[in-house]
Amino acid sequence: MKILLLNPNMTQSMTDNMAAIARAAVGDAAEIIPVTATRGFPYIASRAEAQIAGGLVLEMIAEHEGSVDAVVIAAFGDPGLVGARELFDLPVVGMAEASVMTAALLGESFAVVTFSPLMTRWYAECVCATGLKDRFKGVLTPEAAPLRLGNVQTDLRDDIVLLATTAATQDHADVVILGGAPLAGLADDIAAQVPAIVVDPITAATLQAMTLALMRSKTAKPNRANKPAAKASKGLPEPLAMAIQHGGPSE
Amino acid sequence: MKILLLNPNMTQSMTDNMAAIARAAVGDAAEIIPVTATRGFPYIASRAEAQIAGGLVLEMIAEHEGSVDAVVIAAFGDPGLVGARELFDLPVVGMAEASVMTAALLGESFAVVTFSPLMTRWYAECVCATGLKDRFKGVLTPEAAPLRLGNVQTDLRDDIVLLATTAATQDHADVVILGGAPLAGLADDIAAQVPAIVVDPITAATLQAMTLALMRSKTAKPNRANKPAAKASKGLPEPLAMAIQHGGPSE
Amino acid sequence: MKILLLNPNMTQSMTDNMAAIARAAVGDAAEIIPVTATRGFPYIASRAEAQIAGGLVLEMIAEHEGSVDAVVIAAFGDPGLVGARELFDLPVVGMAEASVMTAALLGESFAVVTFSPLMTRWYAECVCATGLKDRFKGVLTPEAAPLRLGNVQTDLRDDIVLLATTAATQDHADVVILGGAPLAGLADDIAAQVPAIVVDPITAATLQAMTLALMRSKTAKPNRANKPAAKASKGLPEPLAMAIQHGGPSE
Amino acid sequence: MKILLLNPNMTQSMTDNMAAIARAAVGDAAEIIPVTATRGFPYIASRAEAQIAGGLVLEMIAEHEGSVDAVVIAAFGDPGLVGARELFDLPVVGMAEASVMTAALLGESFAVVTFSPLMTRWYAECVCATGLKDRFKGVLTPEAAPLRLGNVQTDLRDDIVLLATTAATQDHADVVILGGAPLAGLADDIAAQVPAIVVDPITAATLQAMTLALMRSKTAKPNRANKPAAKASKGLPEPLAMAIQHGGPSE
Amino acid sequence: MKILLLNPNMTQSMTDNMAAIARAAVGDAAEIIPVTATRGFPYIASRAEAQIAGGLVLEMIAEHEGSVDAVVIAAFGDPGLVGARELFDLPVVGMAEASVMTAALLGESFAVVTFSPLMTRWYAECVCATGLKDRFKGVLTPEAAPLRLGNVQTDLRDDIVLLATTAATQDHADVVILGGAPLAGLADDIAAQVPAIVVDPITAATLQAMTLALMRSKTAKPNRANKPAAKASKGLPEPLAMAIQHGGPSE
Amino acid sequence: MKILLLNPNMTQSMTDNMAAIARAAVGDAAEIIPVTATRGFPYIASRAEAQIAGGLVLEMIAEHEGSVDAVVIAAFGDPGLVGARELFDLPVVGMAEASVMTAALLGESFAVVTFSPLMTRWYAECVCATGLKDRFKGVLTPEAAPLRLGNVQTDLRDDIVLLATTAATQDHADVVILGGAPLAGLADDIAAQVPAIVVDPITAATLQAMTLALMRSKTAKPNRANKPAAKASKGLPEPLAMAIQHGGPSE
Repeated sequence: MKILLLNPNMTQSMTDNMAAIARAAVGDAAEIIPVTATRGFPYIASRAEAQIAGGLVLEMIAEHEGSVDAVVIAAFGDPGLVGARELFDLPVVGMAEASVMTAALLGESFAVVTFSPLMTRWYAECVCATGLKDRFKGVLTPEAAPLRLGNVQTDLRDDIVLLATTAATQDHADVVILGGAPLAGLADDIAAQVPAIVVDPITAATLQAMTLALMRSKTAKPNRANKPAAKASKGLPEPLAMAIQHGGPSE
Repeated sequence: MKILLLNPNMTQSMTDNMAAIARAAVGDAAEIIPVTATRGFPYIASRAEAQIAGGLVLEMIAEHEGSVDAVVIAAFGDPGLVGARELFDLPVVGMAEASVMTAALLGESFAVVTFSPLMTRWYAECVCATGLKDRFKGVLTPEAAPLRLGNVQTDLRDDIVLLATTAATQDHADVVILGGAPLAGLADDIAAQVPAIVVDPITAATLQAMTLALMRSKTAKPNRANKPAAKASKGLPEPLAMAIQHGGPSE
Repeated sequence: MKILLLNPNMTQSMTDNMAAIARAAVGDAAEIIPVTATRGFPYIASRAEAQIAGGLVLEMIAEHEGSVDAVVIAAFGDPGLVGARELFDLPVVGMAEASVMTAALLGESFAVVTFSPLMTRWYAECVCATGLKDRFKGVLTPEAAPLRLGNVQTDLRDDIVLLATTAATQDHADVVILGGAPLAGLADDIAAQVPAIVVDPITAATLQAMTLALMRSKTAKPNRANKPAAKASKGLPEPLAMAIQHGGPSE
Repeated sequence: MKILLLNPNMTQSMTDNMAAIARAAVGDAAEIIPVTATRGFPYIASRAEAQIAGGLVLEMIAEHEGSVDAVVIAAFGDPGLVGARELFDLPVVGMAEASVMTAALLGESFAVVTFSPLMTRWYAECVCATGLKDRFKGVLTPEAAPLRLGNVQTDLRDDIVLLATTAATQDHADVVILGGAPLAGLADDIAAQVPAIVVDPITAATLQAMTLALMRSKTAKPNRANKPAAKASKGLPEPLAMAIQHGGPSE
Repeated sequence: MKILLLNPNMTQSMTDNMAAIARAAVGDAAEIIPVTATRGFPYIASRAEAQIAGGLVLEMIAEHEGSVDAVVIAAFGDPGLVGARELFDLPVVGMAEASVMTAALLGESFAVVTFSPLMTRWYAECVCATGLKDRFKGVLTPEAAPLRLGNVQTDLRDDIVLLATTAATQDHADVVILGGAPLAGLADDIAAQVPAIVVDPITAATLQAMTLALMRSKTAKPNRANKPAAKASKGLPEPLAMAIQHGGPSE
Repeated sequence: MKILLLNPNMTQSMTDNMAAIARAAVGDAAEIIPVTATRGFPYIASRAEAQIAGGLVLEMIAEHEGSVDAVVIAAFGDPGLVGARELFDLPVVGMAEASVMTAALLGESFAVVTFSPLMTRWYAECVCATGLKDRFKGVLTPEAAPLRLGNVQTDLRDDIVLLATTAATQDHADVVILGGAPLAGLADDIAAQVPAIVVDPITAATLQAMTLALMRSKTAKPNRANKPAAKASKGLPEPLAMAIQHGGPSE
């Protein structure tokens, strides 16, 4: 089984780190195919950026659709997820939604801990967009944004442990999701110090993608009633135009 | 005052019709500047298409930002609205949200009547995304999709009147929004036959854009705390890259 | 076009101030007809008072219905709004609902800043009654109630700026509504100091009333299915009895 | 113990019938004091009418406040309830809210069956206003409004049984409330034929008023923090002005 | 009338205290039949414990069903309530739900004050399970759990008064419920010091059970459509097996 | 890895069928340990039965806790899930919740199709209890309950296909869950005929249990703040008493 690990950000080091985590999660059960956006932004942090990056996500999935079994959109805001899931006939999961659904299976309630107050609002909106608002205990962050993203796992380690502990003891979160690509992989490291179940979103998303691919391989590919009708387009990259055209010729 | 009437679909005749309606709505109080997408789709009808078209909306606003006072995104799914409103320092309204908020000021409850059952789900999601789900009485459509969009106002006139009447009498809608660009302008024509207040979305969106521009011209332009920080990008059209970079040079 | 600016409070100076703001908002586009309650309370501040004042609102609209094109109920709790909109065949807007809908078109989220903690609960209930609870970030007020209402704009200016700034930076409100007639007109004055879009409710309500009147003048007056059936009454002022009787004789 | 059974409608026969039902419910445990509105409407059926009648309710309670232990507002729309409960220092219950809360104690889910489709929307709004929307299975009515209200219990008996049965078997309502004063007293008569628990709103409201009066007589009368501050008024009947003024002189 | 006061905890002194309160509430109008669990836990404080105790509640009701008119489940978490109400043909109320519904009739909003932060989450979940989340202002507790439950009414009296005052003044709660069996009976004692209406859950639940029994005795016992079909079982105490079997022989 | 497949019903043939499906789902990646309830009911179908069976679930998990890595509660109502997840330090999933979360990762919206109208209400409540109500399109069933459960997969095959098709085309469900143990394994068989993604709950629950066990084995076992404190009990089976006592001696 092949899983496309699609980083809609342009930062290659982030992709490398996430690919290593994804490989550790699936072991021999699946092959991880990492790709990094070649246009767009170093790190998506606004709705306008997610609007644009979501279009890139569709382009990147269209390029790989025939050669992979499932897709992980490796950015916490899940750019492009809704459109991709509607358009393509293979499982597509987003880092935020997959970790939220996983957290909801591990406990009654969950919180998100992340590295910067600048992400609070967006991450909270992403969680609420999953529909699980009533089991969500909020986003906890350090008071100030970090100066550099590269080493937040070291610089903010103690803060993250403290915030996760607060989420468990004050906000009654059974599960804490460490949100955002810069924290990918930290969960294992701090789990013993946190009085809650800690979820790494890349691990969760990759395992969920594998689970869904296993399930769908068992059943015939459905002719989905809710798949959009074939449509001509103009100015789109060929693979995406073909996908939207259901394999027919683009305009 | 200048209002950008931005059609994210590529169909010029649709733009022409909507521009005429918008001009009738504002009279001498504003100048309507119509623009039509030159890439993308003839008529957006899925989430993937809206993801892509929303990116085009950002590009088109960036091109005109300096020369207009407000923007109307003239497609019922409001592609790109959330990102545009966050990024740009002028009022941006979407056809769906503007007509929903207008309807909520005209009556306690409202419904949407449109031309095709293929739009039901998407339009319902757009209305719910405004937050006014509890005052919404649903989407009513003919049973079958029309073969041609060009003349639905003539072909479906009786059906639309009947559906709007049902919305008022059975579903207790005080206000009926005629959703979707193909029905733009029909409201005036059928209003006398419908036992509810009928809203034309282009009229509503254009008047709301004018209202917001009037309000914002009265107050200093705020230095919004929630505006995204300036960011470099790669591969974006120059005006959009500049807007995201807050006027600085793009990468 | 004539807009009835109906102050359900008995304080004439409040009406004068609000009329000036409303006139500045509409310019030559409409004539503002201010009226002040001659019974009731100097300043409505409870549900019982709003119950009574809402009845006075119906009486006052009935007196002017034939000679105006739209009505603004100029008190933040929107007394009588729901009944008035159902009964009368012209647009009626409330200060709270109109500013909430306007705020929702200007940003994703909004908060209310007002002059006294005594208003917190009622204002919050009024906002929630519009249905937009999920986009609402709460009511922020000074800790203590002011001793005098007449000069709160001067006395509390710095507090209001600080509260509006907190709403934007801590509570992620894109838009701040300055709630309550005593703050009418302050928005322009402080807008440059607040990192959010600031909404003056009288300006918003007056412009929305004008917008709705423009829209409704374009369409035939509907024979609304949801208008209450004609009914006889006893003991009501003649104009209101006539309106409820659909123009027929009262008992 | 004395319970004020306040009919905000002017129809004396309705009051007489409801008083008999209330007396049967409380037996010797309480005395029922029936009063009928002397102004207003024969039967409230719209929001404007409820706005006006709610003011009359406040006047009527103020007249009797000193001599009763609890109040039942005997109209399903609960006119004036929120203001009355805030203003007066004795228990005040509405027919709709009291029967909804009682139904929620008798079963997981409940529906309302009433005599006319004209009441559907208003009754549904009254139920939702209690906050128990998620346990509510809707309002069921005959298809056409009855020509006369006086004998709906006889004319519509079979319809009501059938509708209540449908509520239980199709809509999974454990409890059926027979809404509206014209059906008062029918519950006992049809209970054996309906496969659900049937609630008579007058019985429920009267017993709840008695229960609350028993509870409050056991505790000292609180100095409620949320009681509105004393306020002068103009043009109100003396007892209501006194209540709003906290017993001080009116203007 | 006989009311079964069923304590699903094994602590006899708790039962004795609650029985005294219940008797004071009903006076001569009903006989209180107290029973105490003989298996299970001294004091239920978790979901697993409530799962088990809820089964015991069913067993205990089955033993007494024929000889009582209504049942009070005298533990704030309402263990077994939903199943009991579905299975048995007599009114069954839980301490939490009955006090919540009573509070909602006494004021617009309510809060819960209890003796230990360990109960916060569970009590909040119990309140939300009633459906009245939107009128609920939260659970307030002392910062630390008490060392002994036996004398919390004395040890924590001042804290409880302060917390109830905060609920009223800061959180705008009109009504304060003193949650948890260890606080049973304290309401009368502190009511004069709290600026809100204070509700004792045992008093509320007992009076509601009496009210419901009065109402149901008036109507024929319905053949409930939603009562579970008769079913054989294995290993259950005879009375419960009989109830589930609808009186037929168990396996 | 060992996964306990716990059937809280007493029907061995149901366990055998579900174990075969679970084994097919996990292949060599995990060992399935099936257990069947030896007390209780042949097939749980009411809340009272679930209350009792949920206690049995706790007993059965306590017996096997030390020798398995995860638990599947193999009944659609998820009896005992909330208490088990709180009490035990290993992943516990329920058939309903696991298939709902899986469905939410496969599509925007989902419906449940099952074999009998008698399950509609309970299954709908189970889905809503997961918190994902807003993405849920309802339960669809044949009009009549089947006479025998043993062969519903054959007898009702065509009905199930038709209902699943209706869910997709009329109710806009992207995913259809085949709810209830009697339909376990049917998904693969009918998937090619249904225009939606079809989910088998046993497959989903087993794969989710495996996923969660993989994730938790990677992190240290947390000292959960929200785990109930150790407590003595009376009359419980020894293993469960020990678990509740945190391994200490029972009373």
